[in-house]
Amino acid sequence: MTLGGWHAAWLPSAALRALGARNAVVLGTGPLVETVVREIADAAVSFGGTVRREPTGEAAPDVVFSIGDGDEPQAFVVSRRDGVTRVVAGGPAGLLYGLFELARRGESGFGADFGPQRHEPVMRRRMLDHWDNVDVHPVMGQVERGYSGGSLFWADGALRDRTRVTAYARLLAATGINAVAVNNVNVHATEARLLTDRLGEVAAIAAAFRPYGIRTHLSVSFAAPRTLGGLSTADPLDPAVRDWWASAARRVYETIPDFGGFVVKADSEGQPGPFAYGRDHADGANLLADALAPHGGVVHWRAFVYNHRQDWRDRTTDRARAAHDHFTPLDGRFRDNVVLQVKYGPLDFQAREPVSPVIAAMPRTSLAVEMQVTQEYTGQQKHACYLGPQWSEMLGFRLGAAGDVAAVAARGDGLVAVSNVGDDPFWTGHPLAQANLYAFGRLAWDPALDPAAILDEWIDLTFGVSTEDGLRAALHAILDDSWRTYERYTAPLGVGFMVRPGHHYGPDVDGYEYTPWGTYHFADRDGVGVDRTRATGTGYTGQYPPPWCDVYESPATCPDEVLLFFHHVPYGHVLHSGKTVIQHIYDSHFAGAAQAARMRQAWRAVPVGGLLAADLHARVGERLDEQVRCAEEWRDQVNTYFYRKSGVPDAHGRRIY
Amino acid sequence: MTLGGWHAAWLPSAALRALGARNAVVLGTGPLVETVVREIADAAVSFGGTVRREPTGEAAPDVVFSIGDGDEPQAFVVSRRDGVTRVVAGGPAGLLYGLFELARRGESGFGADFGPQRHEPVMRRRMLDHWDNVDVHPVMGQVERGYSGGSLFWADGALRDRTRVTAYARLLAATGINAVAVNNVNVHATEARLLTDRLGEVAAIAAAFRPYGIRTHLSVSFAAPRTLGGLSTADPLDPAVRDWWASAARRVYETIPDFGGFVVKADSEGQPGPFAYGRDHADGANLLADALAPHGGVVHWRAFVYNHRQDWRDRTTDRARAAHDHFTPLDGRFRDNVVLQVKYGPLDFQAREPVSPVIAAMPRTSLAVEMQVTQEYTGQQKHACYLGPQWSEMLGFRLGAAGDVAAVAARGDGLVAVSNVGDDPFWTGHPLAQANLYAFGRLAWDPALDPAAILDEWIDLTFGVSTEDGLRAALHAILDDSWRTYERYTAPLGVGFMVRPGHHYGPDVDGYEYTPWGTYHFADRDGVGVDRTRATGTGYTGQYPPPWCDVYESPATCPDEVLLFFHHVPYGHVLHSGKTVIQHIYDSHFAGAAQAARMRQAWRAVPVGGLLAADLHARVGERLDEQVRCAEEWRDQVNTYFYRKSGVPDAHGRRIY
Repeated sequence: MTLGGWHAAWLPSAALRALGARNAVVLGTGPLVETVVREIADAAVSFGGTVRREPTGEAAPDVVFSIGDGDEPQAFVVSRRDGVTRVVAGGPAGLLYGLFELARRGESGFGADFGPQRHEPVMRRRMLDHWDNVDVHPVMGQVERGYSGGSLFWADGALRDRTRVTAYARLLAATGINAVAVNNVNVHATEARLLTDRLGEVAAIAAAFRPYGIRTHLSVSFAAPRTLGGLSTADPLDPAVRDWWASAARRVYETIPDFGGFVVKADSEGQPGPFAYGRDHADGANLLADALAPHGGVVHWRAFVYNHRQDWRDRTTDRARAAHDHFTPLDGRFRDNVVLQVKYGPLDFQAREPVSPVIAAMPRTSLAVEMQVTQEYTGQQKHACYLGPQWSEMLGFRLGAAGDVAAVAARGDGLVAVSNVGDDPFWTGHPLAQANLYAFGRLAWDPALDPAAILDEWIDLTFGVSTEDGLRAALHAILDDSWRTYERYTAPLGVGFMVRPGHHYGPDVDGYEYTPWGTYHFADRDGVGVDRTRATGTGYTGQYPPPWCDVYESPATCPDEVLLFFHHVPYGHVLHSGKTVIQHIYDSHFAGAAQAARMRQAWRAVPVGGLLAADLHARVGERLDEQVRCAEEWRDQVNTYFYRKSGVPDAHGRRIY
Repeated sequence: MTLGGWHAAWLPSAALRALGARNAVVLGTGPLVETVVREIADAAVSFGGTVRREPTGEAAPDVVFSIGDGDEPQAFVVSRRDGVTRVVAGGPAGLLYGLFELARRGESGFGADFGPQRHEPVMRRRMLDHWDNVDVHPVMGQVERGYSGGSLFWADGALRDRTRVTAYARLLAATGINAVAVNNVNVHATEARLLTDRLGEVAAIAAAFRPYGIRTHLSVSFAAPRTLGGLSTADPLDPAVRDWWASAARRVYETIPDFGGFVVKADSEGQPGPFAYGRDHADGANLLADALAPHGGVVHWRAFVYNHRQDWRDRTTDRARAAHDHFTPLDGRFRDNVVLQVKYGPLDFQAREPVSPVIAAMPRTSLAVEMQVTQEYTGQQKHACYLGPQWSEMLGFRLGAAGDVAAVAARGDGLVAVSNVGDDPFWTGHPLAQANLYAFGRLAWDPALDPAAILDEWIDLTFGVSTEDGLRAALHAILDDSWRTYERYTAPLGVGFMVRPGHHYGPDVDGYEYTPWGTYHFADRDGVGVDRTRATGTGYTGQYPPPWCDVYESPATCPDEVLLFFHHVPYGHVLHSGKTVIQHIYDSHFAGAAQAARMRQAWRAVPVGGLLAADLHARVGERLDEQVRCAEEWRDQVNTYFYRKSGVPDAHGRRIY
C-alpha cells in the first residue's frame, strides 16, 4: 500500500528506478512537460538521479526528453546512441508517453545503443467510461456494474477529495488512456445536474486528469432540456431545445476548456431519447454534436439500442439484430463529431460473442468500439479472467473489405471500455484484474501487441520480478488462458447469458429464458441454440459481409465457439472438433472447473515477498477460492441441466447430478 | 374513503346501521365496555338510536348488553325474546364480540325472536404477526413480504400517528383477533431496541390496540443480551443472560401491563439462536418463557428451522423433514408458556402443501399453527386469491389420533397468521384481499365456518348489498374458487416454489432448482417430482401418523394434488383423475389462465355504486389485469418448460411455445 492507503498497481516507485537513477534533461514547456519533470524528479529523490530543464550543466545527461516537430503530438521516437537515450516527441503528450515507455524498458533503456523506434497510437482516442453514480442508486449502488467498492469520484452524493483521482490519472497515462467519461450512461436525476449546477464537480475532476493528458467527458440525459431546462420538450428539431443544448455546451467549455464531449445512451433500457418525438438517432446525435462542434467536442452516441420488453414467445424478434437494424440506415447522416459507440458483440459483453456486424456496416460514420474492462459477465472480479486475449482476438477479426475491427476503430474514433476501478485498496477488487485495465490501454495504443507480452509488461512494472521468477510463471499459468477457462465452465458454444437476471453473476441456465430481455438458448430435450440463419431463423447472419454471412449461415462452416449463437442443433450434432455438442458441454465444463482448481494451486505455491505483499497474496487467494467454488457450481448446474434435458450420459462416466 | 383517507373495509358506518337505529342499554364497567358504548353511540348519531348505561329510562330498550357469570370471558350468548335482543357475555371481551355479532346479523338481529345462541372462540389466541420494520430494510423494505404499502406503525425510522392503528384494531376486533405482534420476526438492529430504549413505541401501539381487546406482542432477537445488554454471551444457560432477560421482561410489564409476550425466530435463515452455544431450542425457548412467566406472558417460538445453505447436489437432505427432525425430540421439554409456532405446511406457505406432520407429533407441547394472510407465494395481492378455502381444508385435515389441525391448535395456543395490511388506502393493496384478513379472524374464532358463508358476511358488511345483488354474485364468481385457480395456473400437483428467488413473484420454473434453499422439483426429460418416500426417497412420509404415512408412501394412494410433493413420477404416470401428469399440467394451466380471464370479465360487468366506489372498482380492475397477464405467463412458461423437457404434445393441440 502507498501512503494514500492503496496499492501502487503498475507504478510502484521501483517502476521508475532506472530513470530515477539517471541524469535527465527535459526540454520544452507546458503542463504535460511539467508532469514529466515532476515524475522524474520524484523518482530521482529515491534513486539518486537528477533532472534539469536545460541541456547545459555539469553532469553529462543519460537521457534527454524533447519535443520535435512531428505531425502527431501523441507520438514519440526513442533511441540510444553514445550512451545517451533520447525521447523526441511530436508534442507534450508524446513526451509523457515516452516517459512511461522508458519505465517499461527499465534498465534495458540504458544499456546497449539502439536505433530510433517510433511509437504512435493506433487509436487516436483511448477512452474509459465510468458508470459511477453521484447518489447511491437503490438497485445499482454507487457504481453500476462496479465490483471494486465505491466510486473514486463521488461518495454518498458528494464529490470526494481528488488525491486518488490524480493517482488514477497517472496509472491510466502509463497505459496510454487519454479520455475518461466520469459518470454512468444511465443518467439519473442527480447525475443529470453534473451538466448544469453541479458542473463544478466535473471541472474539479478534469483538473485532476489534465496533468496526465486525459480529457474529461460527461454522460448526459437526452431529456435534460425538459428535466433541467424547464422546456416542454426535448425534441431534437425544436429550436428552443437546440438553443438550450448550445448554451449548456458553451457553459461547459467556459468552465472546462479542454472538455472532451458527451456520452449518450438514448432510447435504451428506459433512457430517454429522440424516439419520443418521432425523430431518429441521427437527429438526436446531431443535436448534441452541433452544440459541441464550436468547441471541438464530440458526442459518443451508443448503438446499444434494442427492445428490452420483448415477448419470449415471439421467435421472430432477435435482439442481436437490433443495433444493425436501427443504425445502418442512418450511415452518412451523422455529423463529423458524432462517434457511434458500438459494443464489440451484438448482445452485451458476453465472454463469447461473434463480432458485431455493425462495425463493418457504417463506412461513412465515425465508430468507436466499446469493450468492458469491468467484468460484468466475466466473473465480476471474483474470477481471474484476463481479457487481453479476448480483445486481441476481436480486434484482429477481419470483417471483409472493412478490414479488421482495429482498422475500423482506428479510422474512426478509437476504443472505449467500461472501467473496472473503484475505491477498493487494490483498485479493482481482484488485484489481478489490474492486468485488464493495463491491457486495455495498451491494446488501444497498439492492437497488434501480444496479450502475453502485455502481461509481462504488467508483471515487470507491478512486481519487478526477474524473468525466471516463480511469480511470473504462476501469473502466466493463472492468467494466460483464464478467459478461455471462464468460457469453458460457463455458457457453452457461444450461447451466453446463463446468469441470474439483475446481478448477472453465477449460473442460472434458464435465468433469461422467459424474460423480456431477448436472450434465450431454446434448449429442449432434443437440442439447443438460436437459429439466426437467413434460411430458417431470424436472418441475423445476413447482416454480415462476405465471407461471414455464408460461413455463419451453415453449421458445416460455422466455427464451433459460436455455433449455438447461430444455430439450433441436436445434442448429437458433431462439432468440427469431432465431439458431439452434448459431450462438448460435459467435457468443457469439467475441464474449465479443473483448470480453475489448478489456477488456485499455482497461486498457493507462490511465496509472499518483494512487491508481492501479504495482503495482496491473501486477497487473490480468497478470490481464487470463490472462483473454484463458483466454477464447480457452473460445471454441475450446466451439466446437470443438459443431462436432465438430453438424457445422454457422459462418455467418461463422470459425476453429473 | 373515510375522513382519515382510507377505505372503511368491513366497518362502514352502514355496518352498524341496525344497531345504531335502536335503543340500546349497555351494562357493566371497564375499558372494553366503554368501547362498546362508544361504538353504539357513534352509530346512534348516524341512525337515530340511543344508548344508555342503565336499564331504567323512558324508552323501552331494543337491545341489552350485559356481563353474566360465564366461565369464558370471550364467550357470549345472544337471544331475542319479546322484542328485546340480549347479549350476555362471559366478560368484557365477550361483550365486544357480541357487538360485532349483532353487526353481522344486521336487521335480522331485531326481527323474529330466536333462542339463546352461544358463541365461544374455538382458539383462545387468534393472532396476527406483522413483519414490519422500523427502518426501511435495504432489501425487504418497510414491511417484509408486505404488498400493501408502508407500515401502519412506523415510517422511515419513527413511530407514526396511531389514529389509523385504532381503526385497524377496530377492524380486527370485529373478526375476533385478540393478539398482534407488531414487528418483523427477522429482528434487525434498530428493531431489536423496541425491547429496551424504544419500548415506549410499543407501549404507544399497545395503547391503541387495548380498547379493542387486542394484546400486543413483540418479536425479539435471541442475541439481545449481547447486542443490547453488552454481555459477552447470549447462552441460554448463562445466569447473567437469564437475569438480563428477566429484567428486560420486568421492564416491559412495568410499561405494558397486559403485554402478550415475545415472538422468536431463532437459528433460522441467519437469525441468532441457541445453537451457537451448543444448546437446543428447548433451552432457548425456556429461557424466554422463564423471564415472561411471572407476568403471564408467552413466548411464540417458531418451528421454521432448516438448513438454508443446502447443496442441491445432495438428494438426501430434505427441507420438508427439518421442523419435525429438530423439534419432535424436544416434545415435553418446553415450559407451559412456550408456544411452538408451526407453519401449516412443511415448507413455506405454498399454495399447496401437505399439512405439516409436526402438528400431530408433539402432544406434550402447546402449539400454534401459523398461516399467511399476506400473499407471499399466492399472488402478492396482485392476484385475487381467497384463502378461506385453503385454511378451512387445512384446519379440517385429520392427523390420526391427534384429531384435526383445528383441534390440535385449539388444545394448544391457537392460530397465528402473517398480516397482509399496510398503509395502502385499501389496507391490503388488492381490495379483495381484505376478505382474507376477515376470513382468518373468523376461522380462528370458529374453524368450522364455511368459507363461502364467511365471504357473504364480508360482502354484507363491506358492501351492504342484498342477496340478489350482482356484486355479490360477481364476488363469489371471482373469489370462491380463486385459490384453486391460482393453484391451477402456478405450480402443478404440489410441487411448489416455481418463483423467482428473492421476490417470490411470477413464474420461474427452475428459479429454486439449484439454490441452497432446499426446494426442488427435479424435472428431467422423463419425469418430475421429489421422492420423499421411506422406500426410495428422503423418508419424509415416515413423519406422518397412520394412515398418512402409508397413503402418501405410494403413488397409488397419494392424492393427486400433492403427488409431486411425495413422488418423482414419469410424465406418463396416470393420476386418479385419469389424466397423465403431463396432460394434467397442460390442462390445469390452460384452465387456470382461462378462469383468471373469466374473473376479470365478472368484475367488469359490475357497476360502480353504493358502497362500491369508483376508486375501489378501478383498483380491483387494475389488479385483475395484472392477474390475467401473469396467469398467461405462468401458463405459457410452465407448459413450455414441460413440453421442452418431455416432448409430449398437448392432446388438444393448444398453443405451447
